[in-house]
Amino acid sequence: MILKGNVVHTPAPDQAEVREGAYLVGDGETIVGLYDVLPPQYRGQPVTDYGSALILPAFTDLHLHAPQILNRGIGYDLELLPWLERYTFPTEALFADLSFAETVWKHLLNHLWEVGTLRFSAFVTVHKEAAWKLMELSEASGLRGLIGKVNMDRNSPDSLREDTAASLADTEELICRARAELNHTGFILTPRFVPSTSPALMEGLGRLGEQYDLPVQSHLSENLSEVDWVARLHPDIPTYTEVYDRFGLLRQGKTIMAHAIHLSPGEKALLKERKVTLAHCPLSNANLSSGIMPLADNLALGLDCCIASDVAGGNTAAMTSSITSAVQTSKLRRLNSPEAPPLPLATAFYLATHGPGRFFGRAGAFLPGYSFDALVVEPDPLDALVERAPLERLEQFLYHGDSRNIAARYCAGALTPRPFPSL
Amino acid sequence: MILKGNVVHTPAPDQAEVREGAYLVGDGETIVGLYDVLPPQYRGQPVTDYGSALILPAFTDLHLHAPQILNRGIGYDLELLPWLERYTFPTEALFADLSFAETVWKHLLNHLWEVGTLRFSAFVTVHKEAAWKLMELSEASGLRGLIGKVNMDRNSPDSLREDTAASLADTEELICRARAELNHTGFILTPRFVPSTSPALMEGLGRLGEQYDLPVQSHLSENLSEVDWVARLHPDIPTYTEVYDRFGLLRQGKTIMAHAIHLSPGEKALLKERKVTLAHCPLSNANLSSGIMPLADNLALGLDCCIASDVAGGNTAAMTSSITSAVQTSKLRRLNSPEAPPLPLATAFYLATHGPGRFFGRAGAFLPGYSFDALVVEPDPLDALVERAPLERLEQFLYHGDSRNIAARYCAGALTPRPFPSL
Repeated sequence: MILKGNVVHTPAPDQAEVREGAYLVGDGETIVGLYDVLPPQYRGQPVTDYGSALILPAFTDLHLHAPQILNRGIGYDLELLPWLERYTFPTEALFADLSFAETVWKHLLNHLWEVGTLRFSAFVTVHKEAAWKLMELSEASGLRGLIGKVNMDRNSPDSLREDTAASLADTEELICRARAELNHTGFILTPRFVPSTSPALMEGLGRLGEQYDLPVQSHLSENLSEVDWVARLHPDIPTYTEVYDRFGLLRQGKTIMAHAIHLSPGEKALLKERKVTLAHCPLSNANLSSGIMPLADNLALGLDCCIASDVAGGNTAAMTSSITSAVQTSKLRRLNSPEAPPLPLATAFYLATHGPGRFFGRAGAFLPGYSFDALVVEPDPLDALVERAPLERLEQFLYHGDSRNIAARYCAGALTPRPFPSL
Repeated sequence: MILKGNVVHTPAPDQAEVREGAYLVGDGETIVGLYDVLPPQYRGQPVTDYGSALILPAFTDLHLHAPQILNRGIGYDLELLPWLERYTFPTEALFADLSFAETVWKHLLNHLWEVGTLRFSAFVTVHKEAAWKLMELSEASGLRGLIGKVNMDRNSPDSLREDTAASLADTEELICRARAELNHTGFILTPRFVPSTSPALMEGLGRLGEQYDLPVQSHLSENLSEVDWVARLHPDIPTYTEVYDRFGLLRQGKTIMAHAIHLSPGEKALLKERKVTLAHCPLSNANLSSGIMPLADNLALGLDCCIASDVAGGNTAAMTSSITSAVQTSKLRRLNSPEAPPLPLATAFYLATHGPGRFFGRAGAFLPGYSFDALVVEPDPLDALVERAPLERLEQFLYHGDSRNIAARYCAGALTPRPFPSL
């Protein structure tokens, strides 16, 4: 597989590499190299020449709620806890209906494909069947997903509250089934968040994590009312972060914690030690009045961070919007914290491609040995009226482009068509 | 003209009116009324039935820079003054080429139509011919524009700096020509901002304003470096606002001032007295690190405000994005000013429809005597999977919809096709 075009990617958080008219060469699922001149051994092989189009890494979204794709934009007059009660939980309850779930999942996977998110980590709902259906469909889609059945057995509406033992049994069943039947789709442990997961459930999940060496995803310190609630629920544990750690849920280098806004220095030190990935969700945090994660500070401290959509706290699954919102939000934060530097756009792009790609091995950059994942991006007719450098084309795509600008999508070495074209 | 659908509009800033399956009746360019049951006198007349689609007022954008439609997304690593020098002025200089300008204007008008902005007030460049071309094309487009040749005769690059007398003469020529030849397109006085407009030029423009009773648009207090600069340029005038007032450029009820972020109480009192419209441009103010206009405070003080795109400080002309950004930004502002209420989405919608509509007589709401301007909005297939109330459909359109959701556009009583379909 050889693609030619104006290649832009971020080998490092502070570095955008631009290679005009370069050749991206792959072998099977993997990138062999990026060359300005095609090496002799590839001459005579077919080259897909995209001309002056951009070739970018595809997006990875490490925090989204699959069922909430239906709720984008709904109910942002509320903050987190009442918003969950009034909008989120009733929608999630609908996924007891497997046929409804199947239809939504197909639309969701089509949509992720459309916006160029080819790798993702998703919360489903508590429903085992709905979770398995999404895993199966994701496997068939050509996309790469980490997918987790949600666990919740306390402080939850009747329609979603699980029995602790059943929650653990359902989870283990899915883990085993995924291992037996799926090749490209992983299971990720998904306690919703501390308030809705009992100590016994967290402990059981920690044990499953250890037994099957699984990744974990959850929420941490999104909203001050939530932080207070956790403190009341666990008066014996000093911080929210330590609750997860107490139950073995900060699995070393394998954990995604969404939001992580209101953290103490001690919590940050622990998160760094456990190499937890903090998913910054700027759209969600604005919509639900949660706050602004001090991303620049966290990066300077050496914490692992990424940018994620958090659909449907976030109002769109398009990572372009989350990337630019992260930059805009960092500038607004500076109004009251002038010492905080603004987030460079290249770093924001890294945090939505190369950074989170590590949850899939090596993905999100055009480096040898990385997965061959790419988007081909064309300017719209208005932008095409003037010549632009590739980095400016990237700026335009991120700031006002959309799926109409994406001419082709490659995932793991394959040109990937719309997963469910008949919808 | 009779349309049927789920009608939503904002008769007042704090009121969204929803009328399901209602009839919007127009006569010529004007709305006669909105009815739940078609009145007897209209029975037998053709009704265009849009089923469960939303019928919304079209958007009005009172602050955008026509040439900068090319620069959306470019150069946001800089703040206002260096950004103007490095990115904006070189692009504006290109519009000395009339043939280039004509091509860009056609794309611009197509794009505004596409995103549902059917009324607008635009800065052009200093070039008389380019300004006239946009006026002519806007007249032909079916959209309704206020269009201003920019005046700048100091602190400007050589390619754009005008001779004061020539700037005034060109301006007066356009004023007279527009009056003689155009019916639906108005001229608006457009001093760029105080730093680039000499006292003699401002005085001359003030005189033209008086003589021809013209509206005025400019920039006010966007960035702290700019505010300092104005103070140094006019040490004899106490505030930035009073500079404009001194030269007759705060024309009573006919002035748009963009940004208006860093204002003293005295300036606000004067702006209220002159009934100046303050154009809040939240995307631009984040992109260029300008600040957050205290919109809630300004509304509470009785100041006239609207929401505008400020392309290309703003990264998109889609008013949906500016509306939701205004809401998001108001929530982020609360983190440091907890007493400031968040901006309700309905109010934000009002500020992009009914509020700014007053610059075109009566427009932006479905009230008798108002201009018959409407967008027909359909949910995308994913959103369509669940039933939603019309207000929720509006939320979804504003938070993640785009031009693909707009099925039809009506301006001044006419179904309006893409202005330049051959592009």
